[in-house]
Amino acid sequence: MAPDSSRALIKDLLDSPEPKVGVLVKGWVRTRRDSKDFSFIELNDGSSLPSLQVLVDREAQGYEALKDLTTGAAVSVEGDLVESRGQGQKWELLAKTLTLVGPSGADYPLQKKRHTDEYLRGIAHLRPRTNKYGALLRLRSETAFAIHQFFRDQGFFYVQTPIITGSDAEGAGEMFQVTTVKGPDPDPTFKNDFFGRYAALTVSGQLEAELLALALDRVYVFGPAFRAENSNTARHAAEFWMVEPEAAFMDLAGDMDLAEAMIKSVVRFVLKNRATDLALFDSFVEPGLLKRLNVLAESSYPRVPYAEAIKILSGAAKKFEFAPVWGADLATEHERFLCEEEFKGPIIVYDYPKAIKSFYMRNNDDGQTVAAMDVLAPKVGELIGGSQREERLDLLQDRMAELSLNPEPYWWYLDSRRWGSVPHAGFGLGFERFLMTLTGIANIRDVIPFPRTPKSLEF
Amino acid sequence: MAPDSSRALIKDLLDSPEPKVGVLVKGWVRTRRDSKDFSFIELNDGSSLPSLQVLVDREAQGYEALKDLTTGAAVSVEGDLVESRGQGQKWELLAKTLTLVGPSGADYPLQKKRHTDEYLRGIAHLRPRTNKYGALLRLRSETAFAIHQFFRDQGFFYVQTPIITGSDAEGAGEMFQVTTVKGPDPDPTFKNDFFGRYAALTVSGQLEAELLALALDRVYVFGPAFRAENSNTARHAAEFWMVEPEAAFMDLAGDMDLAEAMIKSVVRFVLKNRATDLALFDSFVEPGLLKRLNVLAESSYPRVPYAEAIKILSGAAKKFEFAPVWGADLATEHERFLCEEEFKGPIIVYDYPKAIKSFYMRNNDDGQTVAAMDVLAPKVGELIGGSQREERLDLLQDRMAELSLNPEPYWWYLDSRRWGSVPHAGFGLGFERFLMTLTGIANIRDVIPFPRTPKSLEF
Repeated sequence: MAPDSSRALIKDLLDSPEPKVGVLVKGWVRTRRDSKDFSFIELNDGSSLPSLQVLVDREAQGYEALKDLTTGAAVSVEGDLVESRGQGQKWELLAKTLTLVGPSGADYPLQKKRHTDEYLRGIAHLRPRTNKYGALLRLRSETAFAIHQFFRDQGFFYVQTPIITGSDAEGAGEMFQVTTVKGPDPDPTFKNDFFGRYAALTVSGQLEAELLALALDRVYVFGPAFRAENSNTARHAAEFWMVEPEAAFMDLAGDMDLAEAMIKSVVRFVLKNRATDLALFDSFVEPGLLKRLNVLAESSYPRVPYAEAIKILSGAAKKFEFAPVWGADLATEHERFLCEEEFKGPIIVYDYPKAIKSFYMRNNDDGQTVAAMDVLAPKVGELIGGSQREERLDLLQDRMAELSLNPEPYWWYLDSRRWGSVPHAGFGLGFERFLMTLTGIANIRDVIPFPRTPKSLEF
Repeated sequence: MAPDSSRALIKDLLDSPEPKVGVLVKGWVRTRRDSKDFSFIELNDGSSLPSLQVLVDREAQGYEALKDLTTGAAVSVEGDLVESRGQGQKWELLAKTLTLVGPSGADYPLQKKRHTDEYLRGIAHLRPRTNKYGALLRLRSETAFAIHQFFRDQGFFYVQTPIITGSDAEGAGEMFQVTTVKGPDPDPTFKNDFFGRYAALTVSGQLEAELLALALDRVYVFGPAFRAENSNTARHAAEFWMVEPEAAFMDLAGDMDLAEAMIKSVVRFVLKNRATDLALFDSFVEPGLLKRLNVLAESSYPRVPYAEAIKILSGAAKKFEFAPVWGADLATEHERFLCEEEFKGPIIVYDYPKAIKSFYMRNNDDGQTVAAMDVLAPKVGELIGGSQREERLDLLQDRMAELSLNPEPYWWYLDSRRWGSVPHAGFGLGFERFLMTLTGIANIRDVIPFPRTPKSLEF
């Protein structure tokens, strides 16, 4: 089948149980070294982190043909897969015919040496050709698949909620405006604009996902979301992907169970299926990563009420930059202290003060807190934020009035509580934050193929 | 596990091999009819198209408790699963305890009767609760999963290309501008805007996918794309999802093989896994649908050069609105004639005149055509458009010059041909067009949960 069925992928050759004659491989030269009689080429085709060593008889192939086999060149090689006489690999390919498909050159920006992350960001169109970004992209793909697989197995349906939206979803952050009107001085009623009203990029698909959960019972969003915040940090991108499950007849305890089960399922899946790629991050990015991921996959996550978390933090010997006080959000230093020093693993903090949480979260009977929860993980802090939603129309309306939210644009959201309303809950997982957790990569720009940040829109 | 492990899903009960005692179900009342002694409730929880018939002993439950069990109400029922004495279902639930979770009312907009598609579009927040839109959304989810499964099995990696872009990708259509500057009179240099330059919503992830295919060998995009075209047709939405695979070392023949294999694999997958939902569309939307889908899944797709297609059309007895002439694009009437009358099934037309195709398509040796292909299907016309890409830097540059395209914004695209360039190809499948094909639904607004079209941005 397409593409090119006569060709073998390097990942399959490296796993071969036996030698093979007449194998065709195609890929790119990562490195080359020459002895008197042989050239040793590390050939990579993107299918796996390890390259295939190709042995080229220099005289037999002709020296002229070999001169263009430099780092970055694309070649097609036909030969025999034989047991390697060298160290570090089981198999190597003894080249019989060798064809240069696309030359590289001395000016190729990825010569054989370590490049800084910053340098590589400037050539994001080429960095997927490096070991680290290749591994990241394969892991990114497999993590996405693991998420789809997990939710499907649990009876969730994948839904696509709108990217362009007329409502401010949850007030989660600054929004990008979407328009077809070219200045000057746009009409404040937007009547000549494409949608005839103000339009923006979504910050969350949750509100629409709720509508769908109240029909299909279990749904999840997995799509892009946007924040127009002008903050140049290692953890913020203007464009990122979010996973947002939403389930009917689920309460906060169920929500916490779901979040924990999802993380464990996905971490196990990638530990099993992308072990070699993860080993690279364990070796070169975060020593101890695999141990940390095993804790994430296998420990059970203690459930800690917010009030208890504040008590623990207040009683801690540690000096915090921000004093922990009831009523304020937990800072990253607090979250990391709880995970790393107090509980030595991931935890779930729940029942947060309602003043610091969104209008749609379900009011607890204490009148002070809402049924919200955050999954906190060692080294990264908050990984997931979720809540049970307020399904009682009167309480939802009261809360919106308290916050001076105009109910008019939310008519459809309120409608969902008018007929057949049921307890329901969900959460949001930032896909890139999760990838940072899975790899130890500290900058969000390095887990996205072509990141979007303030003043940065190349590629 | 969450959500609510004590609860059974209706899809599982309907498939039960045996009776069960003490079953808990939760869902929404679709209809109810009363006899003297019993109420018969059709309960649906979104997990499947068929509802579960719940038998309620009116006297035992108390008439008062039953009065709120109206269409749309959410209930929780505990009872025994027994063989049904009625017709049309194998199992029914004999209710023991019955709890109203969320009432509905006489003003519920989805009373038991057929509603028009147009009426339902106005209540897109509630239409997922109908049989037809429930079936559509389950099918949509499974189709997406089938696509992920197919590509993963073929060694493709799922990549997310940018949604906000600085470049005009392929000139595929009008773009939405993305901005954080609020009027009046924006600076034409955009220096105060978020990205410091003009930003827009992507029309295609292809160019970036090419960069990734030249590193990972096989990748696919599956994400939203946008067109700001002010056309109110049944086939155009401003926001839609696209599937865009791209593979290195693949030529046009491989591209056609891949497209055909993907369609067949996905159609078979959903025919197997969502048979009941598809049967609804066959019964109520397009009689004969299942037969058409079987042809899509099982026939082989003839490959027809564009020039031959024009010859066939020119020689046809049929009168076309637009005369078929070499050099012009095929109109939908031509595409449908070829599929429905000439070949009686899906076909692939290839080698189109270069003047009607994009700059990045590979020049054929005849100097007149490019290595482009379209998959055409009966009833729908074009389903997929793809091409082998021009991998030769000089020819690509010549073509851009011919079209007066400024090469400067494409520096990274051209770079990909500078080092290790290889033959490669890919295609685009509009996900919603594909869903229209799979269901027979004629209006794109009815295959998207919350469609975006000119002047329409509700929900």
